[in-house]
Amino acid sequence: MVGVDRYLSGTQLARLVAIDPEAKPYYRVLAETVRSLILDGRLPVRVRLPAERHLAEALGVSRTTVTSAYDRLRERGYLESRQGAGSWTALPDAGSLGAENPWIAAEDDGLLPLHSAVPLAARALPAALASAGEHYPRYALGAGYSPIGIAPLRQAVAARYTARGLATRPEQILVTAGAQHALHLLATALLSPGDPMLIESPTYPHMIDVARMRGARIVPVGIPDDGWHLDLLTCAMRQSAARLAYVIPDFQNPTGHLMDDATRAGLVSAARKCDTTLIVDETWSELAIDEVPRIAPLAAFDTDGRVISVGSASKLWWGGLRIGWIRASAAMVRRLAALRAAVDIASPLFEQLVVTRLFEDIEETRAERRRTLAASRAALVAALAEHMPDWEFTVPRGGGALWVRLPEPSGSTLADAAACHGVRLAPGTWFGVDGTLEGRLRLPFTQPPQVLTEAVGRIAKARVRGPYGTRPALPLTPAL
Amino acid sequence: MVGVDRYLSGTQLARLVAIDPEAKPYYRVLAETVRSLILDGRLPVRVRLPAERHLAEALGVSRTTVTSAYDRLRERGYLESRQGAGSWTALPDAGSLGAENPWIAAEDDGLLPLHSAVPLAARALPAALASAGEHYPRYALGAGYSPIGIAPLRQAVAARYTARGLATRPEQILVTAGAQHALHLLATALLSPGDPMLIESPTYPHMIDVARMRGARIVPVGIPDDGWHLDLLTCAMRQSAARLAYVIPDFQNPTGHLMDDATRAGLVSAARKCDTTLIVDETWSELAIDEVPRIAPLAAFDTDGRVISVGSASKLWWGGLRIGWIRASAAMVRRLAALRAAVDIASPLFEQLVVTRLFEDIEETRAERRRTLAASRAALVAALAEHMPDWEFTVPRGGGALWVRLPEPSGSTLADAAACHGVRLAPGTWFGVDGTLEGRLRLPFTQPPQVLTEAVGRIAKARVRGPYGTRPALPLTPAL
Repeated sequence: MVGVDRYLSGTQLARLVAIDPEAKPYYRVLAETVRSLILDGRLPVRVRLPAERHLAEALGVSRTTVTSAYDRLRERGYLESRQGAGSWTALPDAGSLGAENPWIAAEDDGLLPLHSAVPLAARALPAALASAGEHYPRYALGAGYSPIGIAPLRQAVAARYTARGLATRPEQILVTAGAQHALHLLATALLSPGDPMLIESPTYPHMIDVARMRGARIVPVGIPDDGWHLDLLTCAMRQSAARLAYVIPDFQNPTGHLMDDATRAGLVSAARKCDTTLIVDETWSELAIDEVPRIAPLAAFDTDGRVISVGSASKLWWGGLRIGWIRASAAMVRRLAALRAAVDIASPLFEQLVVTRLFEDIEETRAERRRTLAASRAALVAALAEHMPDWEFTVPRGGGALWVRLPEPSGSTLADAAACHGVRLAPGTWFGVDGTLEGRLRLPFTQPPQVLTEAVGRIAKARVRGPYGTRPALPLTPAL
Repeated sequence: MVGVDRYLSGTQLARLVAIDPEAKPYYRVLAETVRSLILDGRLPVRVRLPAERHLAEALGVSRTTVTSAYDRLRERGYLESRQGAGSWTALPDAGSLGAENPWIAAEDDGLLPLHSAVPLAARALPAALASAGEHYPRYALGAGYSPIGIAPLRQAVAARYTARGLATRPEQILVTAGAQHALHLLATALLSPGDPMLIESPTYPHMIDVARMRGARIVPVGIPDDGWHLDLLTCAMRQSAARLAYVIPDFQNPTGHLMDDATRAGLVSAARKCDTTLIVDETWSELAIDEVPRIAPLAAFDTDGRVISVGSASKLWWGGLRIGWIRASAAMVRRLAALRAAVDIASPLFEQLVVTRLFEDIEETRAERRRTLAASRAALVAALAEHMPDWEFTVPRGGGALWVRLPEPSGSTLADAAACHGVRLAPGTWFGVDGTLEGRLRLPFTQPPQVLTEAVGRIAKARVRGPYGTRPALPLTPAL
């Protein structure tokens, strides 16, 4: 019990958990709530919890219920107890690999997943699922196919754009099965084989997949360390006569840059001159961490319908929800909806109801993400300062990853070695088109602080020792 | 109250509804249960229901609860009451069009939807949603992306194939976002522009969309009125050197034919000789209505991995669930899963849990569908016998539609006229490639009997009167 110097009374903990007395099964909801308080740092580790009978009294439940919840937490490593000394909060050992590792989701491969910048599910999810369960019967009377998306969700998305400074009508919104699906639909509608398409370098890898699938001629434009240079973008657009340009102006993936107003205005103006359509990926737009100047969505600078925006529920709420959207002219929305009959008919109805509900409390989830991403970012930066002082990066003001410059072009080798030490990494080459960016690494800070600290320690070992034994077979996973 | 000659006691109705005493809100669940008993004919219309206090006693709930449930049923047209005479079951007037029409799902256009062969949601859905709500937290700890599908669902699908006589391992299953998505993935992987692709004529319209999107050369093979002719299929396959052939052997959409064992064996053998890959659409396979001989899935005749099967949760359970699957070699499954990163990353996780649960009681839902589809099919056949004695069709032993031969080539004109009379139809031309099949009409029997009876009466009027006024603007809807 070394180091246990704080304790919580039954009343204090009851106030902190604040769960619905009707929640079922109560003990699991209680355990899960305590676990998430620990995971995001609101309940520190090594704090003594109240005796079971005190917490039971404070919550107005049976002592057995609290015992079951404590047992569950203990089994999973979030609670340690000693006879006569009580129970205190703890963290499971992130170092124990394998399917039983409590940090690893069901069916994952047991490696710490630092290849993917994907936050865990937001807290608002269970309530939204319950609400969708109440509303879906109205839709169950019908076929359930809504190629363009259900009206309440299109209204919610349009209202959010309007609130962000870009007046939008629901007819301008097409609900998709995630941002990737949106990008695929747009490329199918707007790109023919051989068409030049401008992308940023580095950029989101699966957009490169889409462009290749369509047989586009990919024109990369580098993003210097200080962010976009408008003249580079403009020149490349003009010289290549790009039909489409794909940009990520808000916390660019992977660099984390935020495009300023002047560059936005200049980019749209250049696109108008070159007759280029801009596809704007706003997957990370809602995930500012620090105070940033209020910047209007890129489409707010549009005057002739050449900016098409793509958004997603994945990063703000959860990737397991496959819901995204496209904002375009109403005519383009209808055209894309017709096209989608050949791709997948419609988005799942239940998920659309879930996301509609999630929009109601979007600010709460944004605050939750700000808090957890800030803590994780700080942990990652601290761990790198300790173990990898020669790695360089700029700390981004939002988004979910550091774009690290390594002292030597060794990203892929390091990723191989790290896999042997239990960490999956995304080498810089994933984010470029022609094997460049070998001297880079994207390190996400979307996992809890403890996972990041553990992972950086392992990467440091991997860097010294190199790969050994047989590298684990890596299952297929996207690099998001 | 003319014609009310039966009544139910409180105890009888309580037994019939058999709802969970914990259901919330109880009055709505009660009203919804009574409504669905009426809709599928287990509670006939014009049956007097018990007095509120008697039902309240029998259910062990307050009288107010029953009053609220009765009020709700009355508002929606499922209950009629008269002072002193009690309340009796009724059906809302399917003729009253518009958004308030109780037969029309939320956001539908107010026309009776006879263009689409899509059953309403199965009864097993609410319980499966609840079960998924309990299981998803295990997955919420991770990123939520599973490009190949979650293990329990792949196991359930594989087990079902095995039970149907086709030994299958989970590695052979890729979970998709519905059957359409599966067809799109397969066409993307296996078809290049200009490749010949054999399809049946008539066939499922959105497969034609996919083939066109890929730039394939479409080779239609007619299905005569008595079903497939193996020699026609074989000749077309050989002469066209088709790279792919797309067939729907189980309750073919739209003809309803069921392919016999000998034709299945011959088709696979011909495909082997011509080096053609067979894409087998089994969307309707689980929906036999009459007793049919047990016929093995087409892939059971495969010896060298050239048969790829596509299945779906849409028809058996609900179209609003966007879950389907592909059964192929494990190597092909991995190839398709990699491809899907560029299309939509992964299927929604929650929906996968729902369908996993639904598989557990698949036989119950099959029995439910047999019962309701049989009743609807009978109502449609009877209404056609009364109003359209000159229309010809063979009653199929399963599936969801009649493939009607009209006495004149007037399908599209009739569909236009019917829309003016409140019914959306699918003219035969939708199911062919080159404007043929104008003398055909697909009439689904997936709606409740009352809707079909009402719709046929309207079509009869439309046939006589023709289109009038302005045809309502038809929103975008797929022809499933």
